[in-house]
Amino acid sequence: MSAPRSKPRKVVLAYSGGLDTSIILKWLQTEYGCEVVTFTADLGQGEELEPARKKAEMLGVKEIYIEDLREEFVRDFVFPMFRANAVYEGQYLLGTSIARPLIAKRLVEIAAETGADAIAHGATGKGNDQVRFELAAYALNPDIKVIAPWREWDLTSRTKLIEFAEKHQIPIAKDKRGEAPFSVDANLLHTSSEGKVLEDPAVEAPDYVYQRTVNPEDAPDAPEYVEVGFERGDAVSVNGERLSPAGVLTRLNELGGKHGVGRLDLVEGRFVGMKSRGIYETPGGTILLEAHRGVEQITLDRGAAHLKDELMPRYAELIYNGFWFSPEREMLQAAIDKSQEHVTGTARIKLYKGLARCVGRWSDHSLYSAEHVTFEDDAGAYDQKDAEGFIKLNALRLRLLAMRNRKFR
Amino acid sequence: MSAPRSKPRKVVLAYSGGLDTSIILKWLQTEYGCEVVTFTADLGQGEELEPARKKAEMLGVKEIYIEDLREEFVRDFVFPMFRANAVYEGQYLLGTSIARPLIAKRLVEIAAETGADAIAHGATGKGNDQVRFELAAYALNPDIKVIAPWREWDLTSRTKLIEFAEKHQIPIAKDKRGEAPFSVDANLLHTSSEGKVLEDPAVEAPDYVYQRTVNPEDAPDAPEYVEVGFERGDAVSVNGERLSPAGVLTRLNELGGKHGVGRLDLVEGRFVGMKSRGIYETPGGTILLEAHRGVEQITLDRGAAHLKDELMPRYAELIYNGFWFSPEREMLQAAIDKSQEHVTGTARIKLYKGLARCVGRWSDHSLYSAEHVTFEDDAGAYDQKDAEGFIKLNALRLRLLAMRNRKFR
Amino acid sequence: MSAPRSKPRKVVLAYSGGLDTSIILKWLQTEYGCEVVTFTADLGQGEELEPARKKAEMLGVKEIYIEDLREEFVRDFVFPMFRANAVYEGQYLLGTSIARPLIAKRLVEIAAETGADAIAHGATGKGNDQVRFELAAYALNPDIKVIAPWREWDLTSRTKLIEFAEKHQIPIAKDKRGEAPFSVDANLLHTSSEGKVLEDPAVEAPDYVYQRTVNPEDAPDAPEYVEVGFERGDAVSVNGERLSPAGVLTRLNELGGKHGVGRLDLVEGRFVGMKSRGIYETPGGTILLEAHRGVEQITLDRGAAHLKDELMPRYAELIYNGFWFSPEREMLQAAIDKSQEHVTGTARIKLYKGLARCVGRWSDHSLYSAEHVTFEDDAGAYDQKDAEGFIKLNALRLRLLAMRNRKFR
Amino acid sequence: MSAPRSKPRKVVLAYSGGLDTSIILKWLQTEYGCEVVTFTADLGQGEELEPARKKAEMLGVKEIYIEDLREEFVRDFVFPMFRANAVYEGQYLLGTSIARPLIAKRLVEIAAETGADAIAHGATGKGNDQVRFELAAYALNPDIKVIAPWREWDLTSRTKLIEFAEKHQIPIAKDKRGEAPFSVDANLLHTSSEGKVLEDPAVEAPDYVYQRTVNPEDAPDAPEYVEVGFERGDAVSVNGERLSPAGVLTRLNELGGKHGVGRLDLVEGRFVGMKSRGIYETPGGTILLEAHRGVEQITLDRGAAHLKDELMPRYAELIYNGFWFSPEREMLQAAIDKSQEHVTGTARIKLYKGLARCVGRWSDHSLYSAEHVTFEDDAGAYDQKDAEGFIKLNALRLRLLAMRNRKFR
Repeated sequence: MSAPRSKPRKVVLAYSGGLDTSIILKWLQTEYGCEVVTFTADLGQGEELEPARKKAEMLGVKEIYIEDLREEFVRDFVFPMFRANAVYEGQYLLGTSIARPLIAKRLVEIAAETGADAIAHGATGKGNDQVRFELAAYALNPDIKVIAPWREWDLTSRTKLIEFAEKHQIPIAKDKRGEAPFSVDANLLHTSSEGKVLEDPAVEAPDYVYQRTVNPEDAPDAPEYVEVGFERGDAVSVNGERLSPAGVLTRLNELGGKHGVGRLDLVEGRFVGMKSRGIYETPGGTILLEAHRGVEQITLDRGAAHLKDELMPRYAELIYNGFWFSPEREMLQAAIDKSQEHVTGTARIKLYKGLARCVGRWSDHSLYSAEHVTFEDDAGAYDQKDAEGFIKLNALRLRLLAMRNRKFR
Repeated sequence: MSAPRSKPRKVVLAYSGGLDTSIILKWLQTEYGCEVVTFTADLGQGEELEPARKKAEMLGVKEIYIEDLREEFVRDFVFPMFRANAVYEGQYLLGTSIARPLIAKRLVEIAAETGADAIAHGATGKGNDQVRFELAAYALNPDIKVIAPWREWDLTSRTKLIEFAEKHQIPIAKDKRGEAPFSVDANLLHTSSEGKVLEDPAVEAPDYVYQRTVNPEDAPDAPEYVEVGFERGDAVSVNGERLSPAGVLTRLNELGGKHGVGRLDLVEGRFVGMKSRGIYETPGGTILLEAHRGVEQITLDRGAAHLKDELMPRYAELIYNGFWFSPEREMLQAAIDKSQEHVTGTARIKLYKGLARCVGRWSDHSLYSAEHVTFEDDAGAYDQKDAEGFIKLNALRLRLLAMRNRKFR
Repeated sequence: MSAPRSKPRKVVLAYSGGLDTSIILKWLQTEYGCEVVTFTADLGQGEELEPARKKAEMLGVKEIYIEDLREEFVRDFVFPMFRANAVYEGQYLLGTSIARPLIAKRLVEIAAETGADAIAHGATGKGNDQVRFELAAYALNPDIKVIAPWREWDLTSRTKLIEFAEKHQIPIAKDKRGEAPFSVDANLLHTSSEGKVLEDPAVEAPDYVYQRTVNPEDAPDAPEYVEVGFERGDAVSVNGERLSPAGVLTRLNELGGKHGVGRLDLVEGRFVGMKSRGIYETPGGTILLEAHRGVEQITLDRGAAHLKDELMPRYAELIYNGFWFSPEREMLQAAIDKSQEHVTGTARIKLYKGLARCVGRWSDHSLYSAEHVTFEDDAGAYDQKDAEGFIKLNALRLRLLAMRNRKFR
Repeated sequence: MSAPRSKPRKVVLAYSGGLDTSIILKWLQTEYGCEVVTFTADLGQGEELEPARKKAEMLGVKEIYIEDLREEFVRDFVFPMFRANAVYEGQYLLGTSIARPLIAKRLVEIAAETGADAIAHGATGKGNDQVRFELAAYALNPDIKVIAPWREWDLTSRTKLIEFAEKHQIPIAKDKRGEAPFSVDANLLHTSSEGKVLEDPAVEAPDYVYQRTVNPEDAPDAPEYVEVGFERGDAVSVNGERLSPAGVLTRLNELGGKHGVGRLDLVEGRFVGMKSRGIYETPGGTILLEAHRGVEQITLDRGAAHLKDELMPRYAELIYNGFWFSPEREMLQAAIDKSQEHVTGTARIKLYKGLARCVGRWSDHSLYSAEHVTFEDDAGAYDQKDAEGFIKLNALRLRLLAMRNRKFR
């Protein structure tokens, strides 16, 4: 195993087609004198990809990868994560975190296909994304080199970036000359916004920051119901219509966005050690989580459900920190997936002014027994006298403890 | 330690003054021939207590305890629990569970004061409350006898209960002759409804079930902000006004109720083994949780926060199952309390049509460092080059793993 | 689902052929007037099984099941458990606990084969085994009836038992007339002894209690080495000789027994709430655990290893409490099994006077990299400068914390 | 908060008086031109400290701190850790890990006292100790500079070190000219050896590596018993003699060393990502752990004990990784300490040829109830009929599950 620090020959760049990654592209060409392969993915961020191709061609790139990864993204990353009901720090649905390993995976695969020895990304040195890209890449190819220009170069101000772009004939969209008022990441699961105008966590985020959900105050005045069908833990239909994974999420995004569902204003602890404030919009994901919990309520045994709840924070932390491709995430996934065998059924969610509440759920796989729980005569299904022994033996150690403790009062 | 099954001489009864516990009172007197002491507590359930006194007197009770426990309830039970951000099965704020140990504690204490050798409660043999009452009682007095009439008697239908009441001249309110359409428990933290019309978890709960919160659709059309101040993990003020623990919760209940905040429709796993469906209203508690998380976001270190999140499901399960007075709950409480030393600050919550969202938070104890997180020049606070080593060493084991694994592909 | 309390027609009895289970057999016939099927299993307890057949025949049993379950026991129960390095309360290797679900499984299966509606076992009402038998049985057949004579009958003294036996012409071995000085359970994994002379936990167990291991003081004066080979987490060879699962454990038992390995004197917390003292001998299992850990040391990634260690106590508790056939045990098993894919290699264990210490381990799947760890020149495998960034970013949150905290000192 | 990378003015060095730290001392003086304060601690490593003073004086140091920290080490670090029964990766008693935070604490305190702005240590860039020193230092003083010469200088071979020493008139003991065959760390809790001749984990460590324990084969042929007394979780006496914390550990070290107790050969996962092999000798600590578990067996409630076991691996990992001074370690400590209130009693340990086994334990605080557990008549202390209800309700969810699952087979 040689040290992965020598100069790269050929680099696969995660390329959005925007100004920043175009500058990176050119900088790699000039600084390292290496060939650059671009990789642009449609993860549902809602942007045209073809302009990225043109720009890459213009910058002299010969190998250009443009791919629609939406189905793979939802099927192999988003859905496995939602089986766990994963939320980071109690609230964040991990929309950015879960996209990074897929991008890193394709970068590494394309490097293998094109004979590149390095990959490059446009994440800064302060954030979590650099960690997520690089841990995933190293886990998939231990010999890969990773170039993170933002940690290396001296283009440390907007002015210098613009100068570099002008010097190298990189076209600059008019609205990119100035500083953006905040920074955005988006994919089919969510849109996140952070930085600049959002940096004071005491101040409410201005409404223009939200891009994907209407303000609940502007949402329809009538509630709307949606029924989400699940099979073995994964959503397969919306309002009875069978859809692909990305199809489900797209539909739920429309519904959630329309009703102002899934807005989150959070200060979170980054893996690199500082706290940051993010505004997240996860309209479809918020409905999905509520619906999945709804179906689990009736189909998942209490023992399994509680174990899942206990494992979840660790699982979410692993994804947040970039350890998707790690043995411990895979172990937890195996446990979680094992639990989902019978998580098949339908949840009915009421959407209204930002709220998404499960108000009904049903399943052929239901464990709910009206016979047992009823206040009415249960025809002997449950013998209330059993409860006495149950309590007595659960209490025994507490009673022995109380007898011991009172000796020392 | 003698077996606590012999016949009781004197019993302290958890007495609401309602029909059911009045029947229990009489039944204890007739069945066991024992003296009965009644205990009626104001936990914020919103009912007059004096009628309970009159009824008890009428039934020949000589020792009548009527107590306002609201401050103790919030200070010593609700607030410690909220320090943990406790939710059961991902959603339930444990409003019923947390009240039971306090009632049991007082029953046991009153038994000691009055020379009673037993306590009695009106919980059924199918539910969690019997377990919570009895585990708490046994933990506090290992010799106490517990009588649970619902598990013992043959008054197994409404008709028989009414007959018994009539036979013993127990007054029956007109609306109590028939079956209630569902069963209710209430205290300062929440109102829960279950049973009967709610037994089909597929069917949305009718709106008349909700008693404490307006329907979000009927809530004000304008949002309202509330600022909740915390000191060392506990709420101490609302909109700048310093309040007692019960005072805080009462105020937040008003605000939450007005805006339709804190409705939950849940199918949950009972400790006794079956699933049941509950409708919960926790208006103030829902705001409190969001506000507490908001202040923790800026004042709690990530290591502490994540450990809390991992411990929480167990902690919530212990409370739900009735193990408030257990060494393991106390251990977890010690850990949680330790973390709250600097959880001092204010959260700003936006209330609107059922939503309670934190939109700002501030604190002298803040760990948020704009200097570190900024996209702007940070004057050397953070060296982005550190990230490379950080990632490299976090990746090392993953790279060694990848090198090993590819030998076996 | 009807209540499983009505009178049984036909019962499958876990039958050892000894006096106690013979009395149970007769008691079932006389008390319930039901037909009895006997099931006697060789789990490696080291007793002849044919006498059980004769005795059963003599007692009029028509359906007699006698089975050698040693391979199934080790392959499907012991080995999966050892993949987890399971120890209960830090020390107990769960030798009794792990055998119970297999016996229950066969009882339920034989009930299905023979048309029996009930099973019976000879465990007392104070112990864990009743729980393990019954939870497993109910999990496998929710309609099965379970008869636990020790909880039902009035044969509550040795004298009454002997009287019953004499009255019903059950032959009584001479040494069974008096009280045994302690109670024993044995299988291929271990021998446990408890009760009577062992009831004072302050007093050292007399040497005659130990039945399967020599006193270390009497063990050979020269150490002996044994090499245990593993594939995917399971032991497959001893000293280079490939053996079946039961073959491995038998061989390790011989070696361990000879060297006095695997004695344990423990006071443990029973699931039913009391503490009890047990003397356990697990000679082969103790070697197996040490060897498995040895191979894991070089083949298991740190992330996986630590997660396993964290999950283990819960996993062990589940087995101890009788929840082998539960979704949560199966979830944990899935996680553990996932981790064992590369746990292939050999551990060298030194046996001497009760000690079994791993002193060497090797594997083609090793993650140990001499190149990285060496004190010598590592040819660039590891860049020590990476450590600075690693530490700096791990420290960042602690520094921010320290800065905050000193404001309040 | 300024970046802690600028040139130091005055440095407190963790100074052993040996060749390596003497070279560091001189290197700091020459490379940084800064004043050096030396700090030499007696942690029980068994070396004279006065030679360190002379050598420091000779090298021109004006502020020399030499301190006996043995009591503080055991009282405030070793004992709290043993309350948790902490073992890393199932086996390692953390002897090196637990000493580092104390050294770092004193370095930082001395820096404050002497007006130094930096500290320095002699740990390499590949190991855990650098992390432990530095995390602790940063947690205690966020502004401190840390110098780790092994990560900075070019003295990367033995030859270059010796040349540097000769050039600067640093005296070189004859046996230090060549390479040591392995590297050693020692304190009152343990001695660790690693590197060089120990780098092949397949090969048994040669006996000369062990420095503190006799080879079990050479240990006395007669067993010896030792009684260790505990109060609230901490050892306070040995064989009835009350001793200080360091006194207890010293006495147990003598006994353990004499009987060959506490040898461990381990391949472990370092925090920096590689695996390394260590030989550990922890004679007294091994006895202490067994004795502490012995007393806990009878004094600690099962709920508390199991929670402790579940928290322990995380706690041990935190200490191993250097997070002693972290909020999460302190939270876990609070939970653990809470559990120890009644861990008062005595354990009797049998020492023989490397074994240390608890064979008896007693306490006024015992929870063990012979009355409950007895096979004899228990006079009604325990009603075996309670077990039926206990099992039935524990089984209920499993039965509901089985009924559901069989619909889908």
